[in-house]
Amino acid sequence: MADCIFCKIARKEIPAAIVFENDDVLAFLDINPVNKGHVLVIPKEHYETYFDAPDELLSEMAPIVKKVGKAVKKATGCDFCVVNVYGIDVPHLHIHIIPRYLDDGLKAWPGKKYTDEEELNKFKDKIMENL
Amino acid sequence: MADCIFCKIARKEIPAAIVFENDDVLAFLDINPVNKGHVLVIPKEHYETYFDAPDELLSEMAPIVKKVGKAVKKATGCDFCVVNVYGIDVPHLHIHIIPRYLDDGLKAWPGKKYTDEEELNKFKDKIMENL
Repeated sequence: MADCIFCKIARKEIPAAIVFENDDVLAFLDINPVNKGHVLVIPKEHYETYFDAPDELLSEMAPIVKKVGKAVKKATGCDFCVVNVYGIDVPHLHIHIIPRYLDDGLKAWPGKKYTDEEELNKFKDKIMENL
Repeated sequence: MADCIFCKIARKEIPAAIVFENDDVLAFLDINPVNKGHVLVIPKEHYETYFDAPDELLSEMAPIVKKVGKAVKKATGCDFCVVNVYGIDVPHLHIHIIPRYLDDGLKAWPGKKYTDEEELNKFKDKIMENL
């Protein structure tokens, strides 16, 4: 896509601190890191979301995320990593690898409760109908 | 693992609202959903984190996350989905599929800045050394 910032990075029209690259996939440092060392893994081809990308590409990206993520963990000495596809913001699929520290103050989103088992099962059935 | 709650769910020793299952992978509703319809995708085998799981398993799980995620989106009518591996809490790899709404009030973590390009490149080099 002509105006997509991640397509421009993939085409090397915009510089980025690239840490991994192959024919299909690029990984580079997020310039607004949640914590320093935060990496984005993208397909070079433009797909808007995780759900738009071909299965084969997602299967290729998963072990790359693992490989790069292990390197992020070693390089930063973080306590753990979050792997995240936020699904909104730049509309070009990007998988975040975020180094986390137990004392970094970042919070997970709180959990809710289902009203009862009937409501839980309603969601279960509705999801299965759409599989 | 004898005491792992997700292993117990995989062995059907604890009930769960299962929406997808094959030989290696199970997907079920999180009983404390960030939003209702929140699903967890786990390998039946016990691996502590994303980085501990075999490449082949991660490659198998990725299209399942897409398939189940698309069903969650259709079933809930949410605006988008977050796909997330938090990396801590239950020490059995689980990929969250979280239905999100533009007005649900949940916030992404804020971004920081690198001091300068030298610091950015230091992180880049350190990650590449560990690849």
